Amino acid sequence: MSAEVGIIMGSKSDLPVMQEAADILKELGVEFEINIVSAHRTPDIMYDYAQNAHKRGIKVIIAGAGGAAHLPGMTASLTPLPVIGVPVKSRNSIDGWDSVLSILQMPGGVPVATVALDGSKNAGILAAQIIGTARPEILENIMEYKKGLHAKVVESAQDL
Amino acid sequence: MSAEVGIIMGSKSDLPVMQEAADILKELGVEFEINIVSAHRTPDIMYDYAQNAHKRGIKVIIAGAGGAAHLPGMTASLTPLPVIGVPVKSRNSIDGWDSVLSILQMPGGVPVATVALDGSKNAGILAAQIIGTARPEILENIMEYKKGLHAKVVESAQDL
Amino acid sequence: MSAEVGIIMGSKSDLPVMQEAADILKELGVEFEINIVSAHRTPDIMYDYAQNAHKRGIKVIIAGAGGAAHLPGMTASLTPLPVIGVPVKSRNSIDGWDSVLSILQMPGGVPVATVALDGSKNAGILAAQIIGTARPEILENIMEYKKGLHAKVVESAQDL
Amino acid sequence: MSAEVGIIMGSKSDLPVMQEAADILKELGVEFEINIVSAHRTPDIMYDYAQNAHKRGIKVIIAGAGGAAHLPGMTASLTPLPVIGVPVKSRNSIDGWDSVLSILQMPGGVPVATVALDGSKNAGILAAQIIGTARPEILENIMEYKKGLHAKVVESAQDL
Amino acid sequence: MSAEVGIIMGSKSDLPVMQEAADILKELGVEFEINIVSAHRTPDIMYDYAQNAHKRGIKVIIAGAGGAAHLPGMTASLTPLPVIGVPVKSRNSIDGWDSVLSILQMPGGVPVATVALDGSKNAGILAAQIIGTARPEILENIMEYKKGLHAKVVESAQDL
Amino acid sequence: MSAEVGIIMGSKSDLPVMQEAADILKELGVEFEINIVSAHRTPDIMYDYAQNAHKRGIKVIIAGAGGAAHLPGMTASLTPLPVIGVPVKSRNSIDGWDSVLSILQMPGGVPVATVALDGSKNAGILAAQIIGTARPEILENIMEYKKGLHAKVVESAQDL
Amino acid sequence: MSAEVGIIMGSKSDLPVMQEAADILKELGVEFEINIVSAHRTPDIMYDYAQNAHKRGIKVIIAGAGGAAHLPGMTASLTPLPVIGVPVKSRNSIDGWDSVLSILQMPGGVPVATVALDGSKNAGILAAQIIGTARPEILENIMEYKKGLHAKVVESAQDL
Amino acid sequence: MSAEVGIIMGSKSDLPVMQEAADILKELGVEFEINIVSAHRTPDIMYDYAQNAHKRGIKVIIAGAGGAAHLPGMTASLTPLPVIGVPVKSRNSIDGWDSVLSILQMPGGVPVATVALDGSKNAGILAAQIIGTARPEILENIMEYKKGLHAKVVESAQDL
Repeated sequence: MSAEVGIIMGSKSDLPVMQEAADILKELGVEFEINIVSAHRTPDIMYDYAQNAHKRGIKVIIAGAGGAAHLPGMTASLTPLPVIGVPVKSRNSIDGWDSVLSILQMPGGVPVATVALDGSKNAGILAAQIIGTARPEILENIMEYKKGLHAKVVESAQDL
Repeated sequence: MSAEVGIIMGSKSDLPVMQEAADILKELGVEFEINIVSAHRTPDIMYDYAQNAHKRGIKVIIAGAGGAAHLPGMTASLTPLPVIGVPVKSRNSIDGWDSVLSILQMPGGVPVATVALDGSKNAGILAAQIIGTARPEILENIMEYKKGLHAKVVESAQDL
Repeated sequence: MSAEVGIIMGSKSDLPVMQEAADILKELGVEFEINIVSAHRTPDIMYDYAQNAHKRGIKVIIAGAGGAAHLPGMTASLTPLPVIGVPVKSRNSIDGWDSVLSILQMPGGVPVATVALDGSKNAGILAAQIIGTARPEILENIMEYKKGLHAKVVESAQDL
Repeated sequence: MSAEVGIIMGSKSDLPVMQEAADILKELGVEFEINIVSAHRTPDIMYDYAQNAHKRGIKVIIAGAGGAAHLPGMTASLTPLPVIGVPVKSRNSIDGWDSVLSILQMPGGVPVATVALDGSKNAGILAAQIIGTARPEILENIMEYKKGLHAKVVESAQDL
Repeated sequence: MSAEVGIIMGSKSDLPVMQEAADILKELGVEFEINIVSAHRTPDIMYDYAQNAHKRGIKVIIAGAGGAAHLPGMTASLTPLPVIGVPVKSRNSIDGWDSVLSILQMPGGVPVATVALDGSKNAGILAAQIIGTARPEILENIMEYKKGLHAKVVESAQDL
Repeated sequence: MSAEVGIIMGSKSDLPVMQEAADILKELGVEFEINIVSAHRTPDIMYDYAQNAHKRGIKVIIAGAGGAAHLPGMTASLTPLPVIGVPVKSRNSIDGWDSVLSILQMPGGVPVATVALDGSKNAGILAAQIIGTARPEILENIMEYKKGLHAKVVESAQDL
Repeated sequence: MSAEVGIIMGSKSDLPVMQEAADILKELGVEFEINIVSAHRTPDIMYDYAQNAHKRGIKVIIAGAGGAAHLPGMTASLTPLPVIGVPVKSRNSIDGWDSVLSILQMPGGVPVATVALDGSKNAGILAAQIIGTARPEILENIMEYKKGLHAKVVESAQDL
Repeated sequence: MSAEVGIIMGSKSDLPVMQEAADILKELGVEFEINIVSAHRTPDIMYDYAQNAHKRGIKVIIAGAGGAAHLPGMTASLTPLPVIGVPVKSRNSIDGWDSVLSILQMPGGVPVATVALDGSKNAGILAAQIIGTARPEILENIMEYKKGLHAKVVESAQDL
């Protein structure tokens, strides 16, 4: 099966954070691809990527970026697909507020589904949930994953 | 067709904000239902709602709340469905920061797709985009809607 | 005597912070129990815990959590007991603001007695003060404890 | 029965906010008294008040103040009783952050049970919950009050 | 003479703020043009505008936008010209922090010359100063303008 | 000559910061004394200190404290002398905002002369400037000190 | 007697705030003068004012300004006198944070005695306290003033 | 050719940050000079520098400073040239907010072209863009530089 989720990030330095989205998607059985696409340094590639993703079978885009983070919002402006934004706490960030606000506070008409600062894992789960709205086996995987989270808390409580 | 999107809010005072989600879903041709469910005052109803929504055919939940807003995150903990959170700037809010942060900063494992402060319209569009991942006619409606946004800007530019 | 104070936390990683509440309660002569209960990963256990605590003789609940911290507020919504909330500065927290605001800014009707960021020791003292409103010997212990704080300042001033 | 809860505030201008604590205490059947005591303008009266409250039968103190709010914390330093702090959004406040932080961020050893900005109603409920730890009839009143909150949400949901 | 400064804004609702840039440019003798170009709703027009501005003789671009403001930064990524960004305090903005940070905190390689919140007048003066680096008569106008500011303060001091 | 400036701090852990005030006062030729006085743990000692300082010949009080810092403001409420407040960035502080706001935002009638976060050196200089308003030789020392600052910048510029 | 306190402000629009400093100085019996001096529009006048104030018998300077407020700090760099800074919440200010931080956070060597946002009255009292360090009759006036504050609180408490 | 860009900074400790502006200017072929000029410790030198820079052939000034950063704004008040401000995150800074706001929020009439926190490299590029408005070969260099940024992203994407 071809990739259903496209993960993009503004810089290779975002990879340690964004890798978590890839890992959880793999665990949840969702096919994905991963690319570096910079809104500010390769706007032409971003345009191509965002305008064509849905034609290639991509269903959800996860975009991570730091500082004045424009990649998630610009991608959202160019695609009809749901875009999940991951604010990355980059070097020189003002405590992450810049990436959070420049991804979250999108104007009416162009939503970005924003997750927590450096919350790439949750971006992956959210993408799987979206894929799961039409594929019951993925929904099952998510329910199993949640049971696993539950079990781990119970176990750690017993260790106390 | 039965409702695919469930809109819930913590208080009737959130209705003026949350109505925008309903309006845009209607415009985009997505069936929805709307309810008042309070995490803090009717936790039992929230439990029932969140645990059963996917069994009733709901595909996406939009949850709006203000202040220490727990409705989106708690709903997300109880459902396998994607949950979109709308931070509402309620009376006594500290400029909206409380609702933004208590919806956005979810721990790993339980994502909430957060939109802008009072960004209920974008929550509706995002829900439609999610529905559209499996229904091409909704994706079409979104592409039409985006063309409409484009046309309005061009028109307002000509008025200048 | 059975436990009068129930200490709960959202994750085992909160234990280093929350242990201070246990230590001071022991010092002040108040019986307590300690558990891991996650609002987001074990909502069912949280429900049981919060709805039954007062039936088991618990008089005060101390709940610590980080990020979008819902454990204190949700517990408060499910119990008639006073709930003390400890904002924990977790990894990926935005400088602690997220946990502070999502615990403090509860809506009218459902209070959480919030203490300082990572202020678990004060949560323990506050719980003892509450127990002390009906048990004079605990009130005595608190007055003794305060004398000790006073003495230590005087001593450190003499060292100067 | 004599007053069990003492409500104090730094200035008469805080009365509209602090009256809500008085109203809910009345509704919940808890006796209270109400005074104006300024940390900065009448420190001697604050001293007397805080050092003697527990001798007069007061069980809980609710202290409200705005700006660089020192009344709750200083009262807590002078009494063995639990002190509930209400940050008031006064004129010239920097959006309420000053009162919130100067009440919440107390050092280890001297807790203040802080409620939301202008959250005087919750301060009253919390005081009643504390009184209720030793008086079952007050605990009953709180459980009834919570049922009322639940009923109102259900009703407003039916109006939708 | 053709326009040397291009003023663009994301929405017609930004016009009351952005008009001040136009007014001061007129006063300082600099030719300008004014357009509505939305990063999120008309990204294609933004691309054309930004990539071709320097070919049409534009020397400086002033871009104003609110919320998650991407117009200044994206324009800067697409043009070799200096871009001045004006954070606009739009409706639903979180006190202006979102527009300030999403314009200011650009990554290394793609600067935006950011002015104060709603500081459109200063954007106009800055554009004139840039034009003035190569045109002495504009530099003269700026020096005259500054003398005028000086004189007004002296006059208002005499009124005291 | 007896001490003209009284330096107090809430905890011995503030000494590394507060020592800078002592050092610069010594350099500027102003007599001082230094004490640990805690608003929250030794309120009685604070009362005595603040109410009697001016009777012992103290002309200016420098008070440093962290977190919900009440020492400067409470001292100011109890003395007719000018009080300089030093916000100390203590452990568990929320980036220093708590100490800054709880010292700076004093209500009308009771000023505290606040300096920068951890700005104890400036507190010492300010105290010397106040003493210098009546003692020309101290004013001279300050002018000499400023010349020294000037010289060091010139020197470091030459090193470039 | 000639003026001992010099009040300056950056703009006539600051006068409603700064007038309170003048009023309280009059009440406390301290001679003052009042001027408009802009750091940014009349830097030459600011230089003259700040460098000569102490030669004219001025003992304390009160400087009020809004936004990126440079008047207090620049005046402090040019005079050996103590400078009191009043952050003014001007139009377009970001909730007052800009003026507070650009006055408060002075580098080591050049203190500004900062008071609360729009805290001009306290600036006046602080100036009087500084004058009072050498003039016992002014110290007396301050003690009387404090008694008046005390009496008003007592009176308002009796009204309750 | 003599220097067209003047780089100044408030302290030698700012040099590691400000050196990046020098490096990129060199790379882009623009002549510059570099100096230490302190607004607060050498205001006379700042005056001379700012008032004479345009007479010596300087076209653009880059000014970096931390904390209550007055160097960029005061320089802007004294020169008709465009001034680029670099907020430096100095020791004791409150997370950089102080330098950002005291540079960005300049009043109407006196702009400072503010770049990101520690964004000295972008200050250099912006200065080159300004010089490039009148010198086509510099504009060419900027376009080449941008192509290099693009190539590096493409390359890092291929490494993935």
